[in-house]
Amino acid sequence: MIGRPSGLEGDDRWARAAWTYVAEARSPTLHRLIEADGAVEALRMLRAGSVRRRALELHPQARPVDLEGWEARIGELDLDGIARACDQGSLTLLVPGDVGWPTGLDRLDDPPPCVFVRGDPDLEALVERSVALVGSRAATEYGLRTAGDLADGLVTRGFTVVSGAAYGIDAAAHRAALAADGRCVAVLACGADRYYPGPHRGLIDAVARSGAVVSESPPGAAPYRWRFLARNRIIAALSSATVVVEAGLRSGSLSTAREAREHHLPVGAVPGPVSSATSAGCHALVRDTDAVLVTDAAEVAELAASMGEHLAPARDRGPSRPEDHLDEVSYRVWAAVPTRGSASTERLGVSSGVRAEALAGILAALEVDGLVVRDSGRWRKGRVGRK
Amino acid sequence: MIGRPSGLEGDDRWARAAWTYVAEARSPTLHRLIEADGAVEALRMLRAGSVRRRALELHPQARPVDLEGWEARIGELDLDGIARACDQGSLTLLVPGDVGWPTGLDRLDDPPPCVFVRGDPDLEALVERSVALVGSRAATEYGLRTAGDLADGLVTRGFTVVSGAAYGIDAAAHRAALAADGRCVAVLACGADRYYPGPHRGLIDAVARSGAVVSESPPGAAPYRWRFLARNRIIAALSSATVVVEAGLRSGSLSTAREAREHHLPVGAVPGPVSSATSAGCHALVRDTDAVLVTDAAEVAELAASMGEHLAPARDRGPSRPEDHLDEVSYRVWAAVPTRGSASTERLGVSSGVRAEALAGILAALEVDGLVVRDSGRWRKGRVGRK
Repeated sequence: MIGRPSGLEGDDRWARAAWTYVAEARSPTLHRLIEADGAVEALRMLRAGSVRRRALELHPQARPVDLEGWEARIGELDLDGIARACDQGSLTLLVPGDVGWPTGLDRLDDPPPCVFVRGDPDLEALVERSVALVGSRAATEYGLRTAGDLADGLVTRGFTVVSGAAYGIDAAAHRAALAADGRCVAVLACGADRYYPGPHRGLIDAVARSGAVVSESPPGAAPYRWRFLARNRIIAALSSATVVVEAGLRSGSLSTAREAREHHLPVGAVPGPVSSATSAGCHALVRDTDAVLVTDAAEVAELAASMGEHLAPARDRGPSRPEDHLDEVSYRVWAAVPTRGSASTERLGVSSGVRAEALAGILAALEVDGLVVRDSGRWRKGRVGRK
Repeated sequence: MIGRPSGLEGDDRWARAAWTYVAEARSPTLHRLIEADGAVEALRMLRAGSVRRRALELHPQARPVDLEGWEARIGELDLDGIARACDQGSLTLLVPGDVGWPTGLDRLDDPPPCVFVRGDPDLEALVERSVALVGSRAATEYGLRTAGDLADGLVTRGFTVVSGAAYGIDAAAHRAALAADGRCVAVLACGADRYYPGPHRGLIDAVARSGAVVSESPPGAAPYRWRFLARNRIIAALSSATVVVEAGLRSGSLSTAREAREHHLPVGAVPGPVSSATSAGCHALVRDTDAVLVTDAAEVAELAASMGEHLAPARDRGPSRPEDHLDEVSYRVWAAVPTRGSASTERLGVSSGVRAEALAGILAALEVDGLVVRDSGRWRKGRVGRK
């Protein structure tokens, strides 16, 4: 037996909270372990020294260094302290199955076992219509102004603005959203009871009052470098669309766009002067990926509306359904085809956001694969891909 | 018999020149008439008062007002004067079949019967690798700088810069190309012996020395408003690619992009600040059409190289070949498939400039139509679309 277990470890919710301390964020191994055996039993196995064998059985690609990390940290776990900190910081623990649990996280391969929320605990409702506005910390005046204009226009249209409370684009987006009396979600790379960056204390408190401050790390967690990359997948997965307002070619915000893309969520990019290094990442997104060039809030709203409703969470889909093997664009088209009834090609173009020129070819290919069926000039889902 | 015919009217070349005076630019009726009966006979019929019947026979959609215009102008034709002006202005008359005739013009439905060239009479060689850089007259400092940077980079890469010698983007592109010792083609909406706008006299002369000044209107022709729109199709048809550097939503340069698109030529658009009205047209091109976002000369060169060589001139193709009915993107993919031998999907993506996500669907649709055939994992043209 490693360490001294708290009585809370027998409770699934608190066992999940314990795992946020024990394991680093973004562990597909931990996800499989909890899915298979539950957080309580996983923790028991860890204390009993038998988790390593079980983890490798469930996830042969598990990295030994991660499993050693778990064993190193379990001895220092203070779950009662975490529970006290949640209480003191007014943090709500959300776990899968809770009403407020944001089901968008279920599309991740490595979702957090739980999230800590300061503010409105119904995170699911809060992000039902939401756009992530992200970008460089070293933003230009142009980027800051544009982020603000977009945020203002989006909250006016009833969208929640999701971002990371960082310097630059994040703060400009949050501030304009708050100024327009809108709702914000800030996903932090530190504990939801902490303030990072320090000078944004007032901003982060205001975000919590308007909507929610969210973290997958336990209270008190420090904003370590690797947690920012992990955090970006949460921002993308929570939002109906992700828009990169201004980003250099190596900006971390491009990883948020990549996460969105990988999970079949629409990505927008704001153009800027070709001579501006902080727009080069946005231009690369438009040139090299399916990202849509967006220039105002109306275009972002259209992008966000274009598909969010059609996408089932990843966990609802088996690993080997035919549509899993579609490329991103074809998937969008397939997802837009209604499960009941049928839709016109034109309608599918609008829903999927795929241009007419490409649409016909994609539908023809889907038809060949049996994923869609032509029905008196309209389209319905084929038996092969039907849920 | 209307008017007094010059002895030159019996010569095909000069009869074509006469038609540039008699008919307004951009006449599909005239094109059919000359193709069917020749310029000399068409002129004879016009003088004999019998052209109207013949024109309507060949082109039932011909507008009576145009045919009346021919009859009104033939009485004032001074072909000897045109020939003298060509001589005085050192203008070369180029007609289809001449070595220097730019075969790109053959893709038009309404090509000019001839063009007048001041400078290098081998226009075909001059535009073999060429990019049209076009945009607003009321350009911003950003647009002017960007046009110059692109032109410099393009001539350095061996491209000829084609534009319209207008204020704003056109002039900035020409000037930077000339400053970098590159070659330029200016297509004017007035006679090639005239200067429009007036203050660009030195620029237009320099363009002629570097490459060529071109017009489809006869010497002395005034820059009437409608000739600018007609002129834009010549700019597009001469160039391997057309790039809109800066354009408002109603900029005439968007018509150049539309002409390029309609003739299956690649279009690029330079992004700019979303708050700049003179970039709104460029952004609309990227959002609403197949235009590619380009940020530097290397990207433009890639765009120009992406397909020019694959495209046969329009007149080589019959009016009812199956590939004529393809949308623009599918056509690009089809055109990239080699006539002899085969190519990999990856290779076709590079040649056609179509992204991998869309490519598979398009190829599948082309295969269904018999236009391409899958051959051991590679693609060759099918019998249906083979030339």
